[in-house]
Amino acid sequence: MKIILLGAGKLGKQLYRAFVCSPEIDFVQWYDRSAKTKISDEGIPITSSLAEIQEADLYLLAVSDDAISEVAVKLPHTAFVAHTAGGVPINDIPQKRKGVFYPLQSFSNNQEIDFSTVPFGIEVSIQEDQELLIQLVSLLGASCQLLSSGQRETLHLAAVLVNNFTNHLLTQAAALCRSQKLPFKLLQPLLLETVQKQEKLTPREAQTGPALRKDQKTINRHLKLIENENLEKIYKTLTASIQKFYENEKL
Amino acid sequence: MKIILLGAGKLGKQLYRAFVCSPEIDFVQWYDRSAKTKISDEGIPITSSLAEIQEADLYLLAVSDDAISEVAVKLPHTAFVAHTAGGVPINDIPQKRKGVFYPLQSFSNNQEIDFSTVPFGIEVSIQEDQELLIQLVSLLGASCQLLSSGQRETLHLAAVLVNNFTNHLLTQAAALCRSQKLPFKLLQPLLLETVQKQEKLTPREAQTGPALRKDQKTINRHLKLIENENLEKIYKTLTASIQKFYENEKL
Repeated sequence: MKIILLGAGKLGKQLYRAFVCSPEIDFVQWYDRSAKTKISDEGIPITSSLAEIQEADLYLLAVSDDAISEVAVKLPHTAFVAHTAGGVPINDIPQKRKGVFYPLQSFSNNQEIDFSTVPFGIEVSIQEDQELLIQLVSLLGASCQLLSSGQRETLHLAAVLVNNFTNHLLTQAAALCRSQKLPFKLLQPLLLETVQKQEKLTPREAQTGPALRKDQKTINRHLKLIENENLEKIYKTLTASIQKFYENEKL
Repeated sequence: MKIILLGAGKLGKQLYRAFVCSPEIDFVQWYDRSAKTKISDEGIPITSSLAEIQEADLYLLAVSDDAISEVAVKLPHTAFVAHTAGGVPINDIPQKRKGVFYPLQSFSNNQEIDFSTVPFGIEVSIQEDQELLIQLVSLLGASCQLLSSGQRETLHLAAVLVNNFTNHLLTQAAALCRSQKLPFKLLQPLLLETVQKQEKLTPREAQTGPALRKDQKTINRHLKLIENENLEKIYKTLTASIQKFYENEKL
């Protein structure tokens, strides 16, 4: 399978590393718009010019959401082009043979991802191209699920809740700990339990706390402790949402 | 160490189980206001009447926040009485010898807790009583940290973010998956990564997503997908808070 990877951001770098390690992948070329060399340490040809792009079975776009259509339009019309973005419609790709190869994971610099644990959501416009994406997932040792654009967009939204928003709650919790000179790691076992519970309990069984109990005394005490306006809004919004979610339930 | 445990809710039941399993603890009596027997399956005397409470080195209250002072006032004046609540001041206990024995963990029915992984926050009004609580923590195989009331209250607030609010985000994410007939377990690897990142990266390094990138196109697309008013408020509030948190930073 001849692949050209386009993009050298967080995801692009991780895909580069995974492709290099897979002997079954014929890694033709890597497009990095700010590349300064013509060949990588691992011997893969690099280009910073879309005019120099060669031939491949798959052109995989790991560029920013907004760049997807700009870059794709410069690739061969008859090529099979797939993007990797959760929130971008498949139709941002102008080619007839279009696909999506969406890794449901969050990528940071300095944190290597083991792709074998990542579920991929895949979508194609032409049925015959599906097999190639499934094969690529399997070369990475990963699992995949066929997703419609609608399913993928909803999953991408859910991923924002699970990853970005949860990370921000943890950031706010860490700031609270710092303000009292407490190590954030005191909260680590609670965080692990919060996550592990998901495997055994329904969210309803796992939900506890002053909001659910309508314990207004504790809620007021917490609001008095909060000095930061954003955290106050977060506290009130989530407390109200929990109460609304379970309002018709007798506790 | 002679202990009387008061309360048979989620935490009370888990402490009961842990105390029964610890041969060094002389488990004198268990107070369960709705008890129907006089002795437990494990041979511990049970009472539903505070008038029948016996003598012990420590009276440990695992009752609801509001019941702490009501129950404590009926215990011997000279007794050492400790509560287990994160958000309740130590002074809710009227005895001179007061303490707090706060397990920083979330307790659900049907989910057994291994206390050896739980950090305890302890506080005493009289220095001499401190050793007994430290000893009890160590009998449970756990670790402890001395916390002032102020530190404990802030930690309790942080725990609400980490546990209750995160759980609600996961509940909302699970509902989104259900609406598209997708299994929530697709998001499990992302959730694990979100949590594991905390050990290696700063929250700033771990923060990603459309809010941080100020990717208004994706934010608008997500808001269009959301049909539930509470989730809409959560999305807007957390997006605004993330942007505010990093506003002075060049990305």
